[in-house]
Amino acid sequence: MAKNFSKREDNYSQWYNDLVVKADLAENSAVRGCMVIKPYGYAIWEKMQAALDKMFKDTGHQNAYFPLFIPKSFFNKEADHVEGFAKECAVVTHYRLKNAEDGGIEVDDTAKLEEELIIRPTSETIIWDTYKNWIQSYRDLPILVNQWANVVRWEMRTRMFLRTAEFLWQEGHTAHETKEEAIEETKKILDVYATFAEQWMGVPVLRGLKTESEKFAGAIDTYCIEALMQDGKALQAGTSHFLGQNFAKAFDVKFVSKENKQDYVWATSWGVSTRLMGALIMAHSDDNGLVLPPKLAPIQVIIVPIYKKDEQLAVISEKVEKIKAALEAKNISVKYDDRDTYQPGWKFSEYEFKGVPVRLAMGPRDLENDSVEIARRDTLEKEVVSLEGIDDRIEKLLEDIQANLFDKALKFREEKTHTVNDWETFKAKIEEGGFVMAHWDGTAETEKKIKQETKATIRTILLNNPQEEGKCIYSGNPSKERVVFAKAY
Amino acid sequence: MAKNFSKREDNYSQWYNDLVVKADLAENSAVRGCMVIKPYGYAIWEKMQAALDKMFKDTGHQNAYFPLFIPKSFFNKEADHVEGFAKECAVVTHYRLKNAEDGGIEVDDTAKLEEELIIRPTSETIIWDTYKNWIQSYRDLPILVNQWANVVRWEMRTRMFLRTAEFLWQEGHTAHETKEEAIEETKKILDVYATFAEQWMGVPVLRGLKTESEKFAGAIDTYCIEALMQDGKALQAGTSHFLGQNFAKAFDVKFVSKENKQDYVWATSWGVSTRLMGALIMAHSDDNGLVLPPKLAPIQVIIVPIYKKDEQLAVISEKVEKIKAALEAKNISVKYDDRDTYQPGWKFSEYEFKGVPVRLAMGPRDLENDSVEIARRDTLEKEVVSLEGIDDRIEKLLEDIQANLFDKALKFREEKTHTVNDWETFKAKIEEGGFVMAHWDGTAETEKKIKQETKATIRTILLNNPQEEGKCIYSGNPSKERVVFAKAY
Repeated sequence: MAKNFSKREDNYSQWYNDLVVKADLAENSAVRGCMVIKPYGYAIWEKMQAALDKMFKDTGHQNAYFPLFIPKSFFNKEADHVEGFAKECAVVTHYRLKNAEDGGIEVDDTAKLEEELIIRPTSETIIWDTYKNWIQSYRDLPILVNQWANVVRWEMRTRMFLRTAEFLWQEGHTAHETKEEAIEETKKILDVYATFAEQWMGVPVLRGLKTESEKFAGAIDTYCIEALMQDGKALQAGTSHFLGQNFAKAFDVKFVSKENKQDYVWATSWGVSTRLMGALIMAHSDDNGLVLPPKLAPIQVIIVPIYKKDEQLAVISEKVEKIKAALEAKNISVKYDDRDTYQPGWKFSEYEFKGVPVRLAMGPRDLENDSVEIARRDTLEKEVVSLEGIDDRIEKLLEDIQANLFDKALKFREEKTHTVNDWETFKAKIEEGGFVMAHWDGTAETEKKIKQETKATIRTILLNNPQEEGKCIYSGNPSKERVVFAKAY
Repeated sequence: MAKNFSKREDNYSQWYNDLVVKADLAENSAVRGCMVIKPYGYAIWEKMQAALDKMFKDTGHQNAYFPLFIPKSFFNKEADHVEGFAKECAVVTHYRLKNAEDGGIEVDDTAKLEEELIIRPTSETIIWDTYKNWIQSYRDLPILVNQWANVVRWEMRTRMFLRTAEFLWQEGHTAHETKEEAIEETKKILDVYATFAEQWMGVPVLRGLKTESEKFAGAIDTYCIEALMQDGKALQAGTSHFLGQNFAKAFDVKFVSKENKQDYVWATSWGVSTRLMGALIMAHSDDNGLVLPPKLAPIQVIIVPIYKKDEQLAVISEKVEKIKAALEAKNISVKYDDRDTYQPGWKFSEYEFKGVPVRLAMGPRDLENDSVEIARRDTLEKEVVSLEGIDDRIEKLLEDIQANLFDKALKFREEKTHTVNDWETFKAKIEEGGFVMAHWDGTAETEKKIKQETKATIRTILLNNPQEEGKCIYSGNPSKERVVFAKAY
């Protein structure tokens, strides 16, 4: 089965959509902007969740669950937050349906809510309303809580995984005694996100701060990780917000300190979502289909038998079961596809398309030679090797593939990162795609004009950004540091 | 800290609520009928999820995710399903808010949905609408999919965990070639649920069928597990439905068989929810607080140091760290609470209240004797034992506690199960609480009248129910088997 799908060069956007649908990751549903995450896609998300969840717990966090609904009035309480969030939301107004005269059903007008409920677009408000009752003294702090949940933002233009009306995510919400502790938490989580992106997803990320215009509604500072996709567009892959005392003040959350003084609590919030799936797909995949890093691949090794007679299959299966057991003992996930309803060629392209990192094929000649053919998905290289020590070889190969994907993505990003000092080159490089390091005068006005003229936004101001005198690429006004520009998802 | 809370005898309902709130399991939120699941409660739910998820995967199921929203028209498609479900639902009518003139926010009337969206009360309709595109031939079957999700049913009277407007659950939705295979799946899952309830939760359950009146809206047969709570009320802990071809017909899902014939697909659905938390709490807990079975306890062993001088603490901590490491090597979760902000007495009652199965306390005398005090939560027995082989002893003790909780609950259920042959005794036994085995004439009318007069419902018709001639407890009409009556949650 040669999958009929677009090439990156011809139509990157179509290539992405084809990949998502034809590799069985997700599909659009009957509800506008909402996707169905199919089992193969969900298995990758589960691996992401498991890895992140362990990292959160290892850094002292616990999970909890807060309501899906937020009373409308809660959005009034934090002014900046309203501006940024309370608009494109799903609103529940009624709580009952009834039989209609035409035999169908209709909304029961008598069952109207006194106060409308908003489906959470993010949970700061309902959570800080709850924390109010959890916090009296410094003994109750810190609160280090995360929740895995669905949220809804009524986006007009949606794309599977990248921007959907409903999406899955985790949102951490922490409460602290001091400003310093809250900032430390914000940065700690940024590290967790960057480590996950690089070591699990194989996606190198820039770490830095957002500008005032790009930061989260209600935050003092928004830290982010930014990745570069193969079409040269940036993708914000995770954000960690230092919220100051904004939400504590909005919801009146105070604590008594060790020194017996009352003060508002300091807050952070942070999240990554199923958007990471989009980043994963776009960072590594090629014109043959999906390419998955071994650490997140639902199937790490696929084994396909090649045979003409049933007796041959029996002998192959016996050998395969031994290999499978040896690999599983190393916690490597293996699938043996001995279905007779599909030909080996079909299976080869199916698993290649689905990004399975390593494929083993065993045929009659391998039986004679005690060998097996190994193919790696990232480079498409094939090799016939002895069965002797095959488990160690594959374990090593999976590590190599994981490292290679990261290295390749890093090399790509380096090639696509340009330091630019004049406006014409700036425009050309932005158009070409990639990260552009340029001076900026620090004003929202200039930022806005650059966006209007080039569609580029300031993706981030790098942490520990080198300070150097320069002139703003657009206004020519003095600047002390370069910032990272790019067109973005 | 002696927790100030109700006793079971005085006010069972208040005892339950106190337990949920004061043991930090959950609390009511600002949204009517919706609870906040607190970290300690959520940690128990996570353990339930992990165990169930593994059982689902071991039986060949995969997870996926379907939209939160269901178009209103979908509820019209399966007539019985509408009757049972489409009524008390949260309805989304708008997708935008705007600034109000008074400075607050209000619903934007211009952003009204053409078709209202219902927050899923269960997902059969949206899932079968999706399966329509997944299934063409027998090669696409079976589909064995589960989702972990939140659902909303606008219940009028809510109780934390037992009945909340929003709750968390898993819902399996499978599609099969044949009726036999679908029925087999339905029963297989009933077994998974019963095994989980008994071996993990330590809660014995009856397995059987629901009557026509009590079955799921849209099902041919509903299988269930029923548990008995300490107040003598039954609790439906899980259901597994054989849906026949009802949903396949409603959503036009056909497949081509091996014999090249077209037929509608056969379906099942099954679910357990955070309601299991309610069952767990009510099955084992006592007037001293929560009692948790070791397999689901977030903390299995709590260790408390008792000391006057800091030097003593240092020596105790050194010994404790060794014990902790030895227990953790056995995958036992241990917490060492050496906080100096709380006294040992406070800690003892805190962890007792939270149901930690085993408590170790080490004081100066133990240092001299190389000993430690072990207390078990289920029986409240204490014993001073040598540190020699302490890890093996505790491992064994946790197994004993797990078994003891089940045995105790089983003994309770047996004592509270009565075989009854006349109406007066029936009424008395129902009033007293417990399961009552009685003959029933098989009519919905009698079932309804019994419910009206006694509040008892038919909880289940046991699998492999012994057949015996008898007379209906209410109507006196002939009956071939006894059914299980009880008042229920």
